[in-house]
Amino acid sequence: MFIHNDWYIAAWGSEIKGRPFARTILNQPLVLYRERNGKVAALEDRCCHRGTPLAHGTVVSEGLQCGYHGLVFAASGACVRVPGQEHIPAQARVRSYPVVEQDEFVWIWMGDAAQADRSRIISYPYHNDYVHWPHKCTTLQVKCDYLLLIDNLMDLTHLGYVHGRTVGGAPMTHVAAKMDIIPTPTGVKFIRWMLNSVPPATYAKAVGFKGRVDRWQETEFIAPSSVLQFTGALEAGRGAYEQGKREGGFALRLFHGITPETDETCFYFWSAANGYRQDDPAATEQLFNDIAVTFDEDRLILEAQHARLQGSPTLPLLDIDADGVRIQARRHLERRLAEETEMPAAK
Amino acid sequence: MFIHNDWYIAAWGSEIKGRPFARTILNQPLVLYRERNGKVAALEDRCCHRGTPLAHGTVVSEGLQCGYHGLVFAASGACVRVPGQEHIPAQARVRSYPVVEQDEFVWIWMGDAAQADRSRIISYPYHNDYVHWPHKCTTLQVKCDYLLLIDNLMDLTHLGYVHGRTVGGAPMTHVAAKMDIIPTPTGVKFIRWMLNSVPPATYAKAVGFKGRVDRWQETEFIAPSSVLQFTGALEAGRGAYEQGKREGGFALRLFHGITPETDETCFYFWSAANGYRQDDPAATEQLFNDIAVTFDEDRLILEAQHARLQGSPTLPLLDIDADGVRIQARRHLERRLAEETEMPAAK
Amino acid sequence: MFIHNDWYIAAWGSEIKGRPFARTILNQPLVLYRERNGKVAALEDRCCHRGTPLAHGTVVSEGLQCGYHGLVFAASGACVRVPGQEHIPAQARVRSYPVVEQDEFVWIWMGDAAQADRSRIISYPYHNDYVHWPHKCTTLQVKCDYLLLIDNLMDLTHLGYVHGRTVGGAPMTHVAAKMDIIPTPTGVKFIRWMLNSVPPATYAKAVGFKGRVDRWQETEFIAPSSVLQFTGALEAGRGAYEQGKREGGFALRLFHGITPETDETCFYFWSAANGYRQDDPAATEQLFNDIAVTFDEDRLILEAQHARLQGSPTLPLLDIDADGVRIQARRHLERRLAEETEMPAAK
Repeated sequence: MFIHNDWYIAAWGSEIKGRPFARTILNQPLVLYRERNGKVAALEDRCCHRGTPLAHGTVVSEGLQCGYHGLVFAASGACVRVPGQEHIPAQARVRSYPVVEQDEFVWIWMGDAAQADRSRIISYPYHNDYVHWPHKCTTLQVKCDYLLLIDNLMDLTHLGYVHGRTVGGAPMTHVAAKMDIIPTPTGVKFIRWMLNSVPPATYAKAVGFKGRVDRWQETEFIAPSSVLQFTGALEAGRGAYEQGKREGGFALRLFHGITPETDETCFYFWSAANGYRQDDPAATEQLFNDIAVTFDEDRLILEAQHARLQGSPTLPLLDIDADGVRIQARRHLERRLAEETEMPAAK
Repeated sequence: MFIHNDWYIAAWGSEIKGRPFARTILNQPLVLYRERNGKVAALEDRCCHRGTPLAHGTVVSEGLQCGYHGLVFAASGACVRVPGQEHIPAQARVRSYPVVEQDEFVWIWMGDAAQADRSRIISYPYHNDYVHWPHKCTTLQVKCDYLLLIDNLMDLTHLGYVHGRTVGGAPMTHVAAKMDIIPTPTGVKFIRWMLNSVPPATYAKAVGFKGRVDRWQETEFIAPSSVLQFTGALEAGRGAYEQGKREGGFALRLFHGITPETDETCFYFWSAANGYRQDDPAATEQLFNDIAVTFDEDRLILEAQHARLQGSPTLPLLDIDADGVRIQARRHLERRLAEETEMPAAK
Repeated sequence: MFIHNDWYIAAWGSEIKGRPFARTILNQPLVLYRERNGKVAALEDRCCHRGTPLAHGTVVSEGLQCGYHGLVFAASGACVRVPGQEHIPAQARVRSYPVVEQDEFVWIWMGDAAQADRSRIISYPYHNDYVHWPHKCTTLQVKCDYLLLIDNLMDLTHLGYVHGRTVGGAPMTHVAAKMDIIPTPTGVKFIRWMLNSVPPATYAKAVGFKGRVDRWQETEFIAPSSVLQFTGALEAGRGAYEQGKREGGFALRLFHGITPETDETCFYFWSAANGYRQDDPAATEQLFNDIAVTFDEDRLILEAQHARLQGSPTLPLLDIDADGVRIQARRHLERRLAEETEMPAAK
């Protein structure tokens, strides 16, 4: 059960080039391509003639041409050419999906196209600001229910266990963090403070901390499946907590865009932006590489967790105190899903 | 649902040597082998004792010996030896299938053995004539419903899209071809003429055409799953169309033998015979290699089409004008299947 | 359907080291590990918090710590630590399995723990006697129902067909062997004598037999799934059969421990002990390597048999005379299973 009437990340803009690009989203096989004018379009990846995936076709001036018998479809999904005949039947069409390219993302609306509201797309201006937030991005496929990846990001106590050798640091630092939880109209937000704590290896390497730090993690979950993180640290007592100071230490922004591929798999679109040594491309590169190692640690544990849950779907699980935010995020999604399924049937 | 009471190609004769050879046909696991006298036999690939595949056994003088506990089966399927005991129970037998080796093919009858009629086997004398039709053959496994491969051959407008860089040539040449369709008692036949057309790269390479050609494609579908093609071209205006002239240009014969392996996969037995430069083995080799590239292009699109159709079995498809012959072939098969299933139950 | 209230081999003791070790037994995913005190423990491989496999965790002083959020479980299965909270709920626990390390094996009790009776574990002192029975052991995974592997060992006529080039020798030697069958309270035992027979290649290589031998195979099946073999040969007429003499020729002991992994796969724990040239490590090594080739021959045929039986579960099979012991072993297991399923429900 997925929420359909919302925007999901379908791809990075940079993934969509001249050739059609196949990607399954919410169990629906899609073909993404750039029209000759550069605009990204998304169609059902199944020709209405004989069912051939359109991703095997070619972009032509009128649209996307099927690679089997040459039918051509416009970005609207309407067939505009049937080789060998003048008449084009009205039912010659494939489903088209609203797409918007913004802030380096290609966002797609998976539900009723009439309800697609561009103003609801998350704004992420940092992706357009290479001066203050130089960054790198990538796409991972993770073999798990997308909800497990959201769970992962909503309970950061896992950093001490899963990422002990990288961004984690000492487990009890995380468990004992001060934490404010703020429900929002679109999800939930939480801020954790690890005051006067030992900086993790990655942070120390990045800016050369010598002693203890005041470390913050601002995390916002925005339904259906984005998580924005603003994380950083100043030397302890420099006023990060007391005076809201942020400059002059370590700071990074992570965007976690999670898109269900199937019930069993999801895409993890993430970017890491360097907010501490912006004029040093090697620092951006190193940040990205360090985080990539970390997210691969998550991927391994999530895939193992998913497989085990699939094998024992009826066995009970047990919530602990650390699950507080995770449960809020899940409840938000359940409410959204209930609202959508009570609505008049969307396609 | 397959037609059972008919001959299918089980293998090329050259595939069946001294050792047992396992192949699944119409979802039935078979073992093919040559008896000591050189005759090809086909048995159910499952020992009646403990179910072991007989393909793991050995050909001995009395027949095929199971490689687990040594039972021996004659080509009739009867067990003729049980190690350690004198008495051979009457129910000690496996199913045997009628097979005929002819024109380099091993044909197998998959239905009621009592109805197996050798006279219905397709005659293909070109395979015995290396002087006028030197040729090469091979076997492909294609991960699609066998009907999709027949469809492919019944609508040659795909040549312009799937094989644009090889035998295809300009798409509209194909779409605009003159076409005669002739129903036959065993299927359907069609002849396409592309008069005064630009020859495809393969043709030009083969005989050095300088200008335009008159090009023909004679295609005959014979149920359940053979397609015979006689294709060629003469320089335009030399009388190919008007006077039925065929010699002195490019000509080739293709045999397409399609045998269902399972509901999801089929074997594609094909041969290509060189009818234009018979004394040049390199020409036969080059023809075969060019066609092999082409059929691999088909395989890729067919497997993609099959996977998509499997994933959306209830979504509608839409026939276009180019589907005319394809639909006739499908209807012929549906009639045959209806006749067979109304017959008194064949094994 | 498996017998649960009995001991199975879970692993070789040497397989369980400092890190948790995942293994599925009787369809149940387990994690095996050594506590800090060196004792082997076995838990359900699924954290009660979020379902993560505990095999991704770490052994700590109090027990096994989950690698995701840090819960710690004692060998009893009780959770003894939940990071971030004082209170540990009573339902915070995972299933624990009785395990006993003995004679180099790790035995596990898969049924009701209250009924786990150590005295029922098979004693195999040869594994502790490197002077008289130097040996090597290993673990194979075989893709078949474990019963097929027991069948294999209960009908040694297969040696002539499956192992003709290794331990088998001439097929009719096996078929014509003298055979005593002795039912036991825990299974069935049989002794085969091949008097005045040509020794197989392996035997001749081992001790340099020049002529014919009197060869014995003592085989005992002990439910649910162990087979103990004592096999050997003396030069013919030296009194092996008549006077019960065993020394001075070829002798080996094989332990076959078969543990169902899933309905479709099993583990084959086997050891080969050299009882003929005990002070020559190369002889032990060569024996092991020769047997390993043999058991791989079995694996191939068993996997083929299993696959074929899976594909035709309703087709009949046909018993022959050689199936006598095999059928007794199967009946013993059926009785045990019937007894167990009639018992008050064990967990």
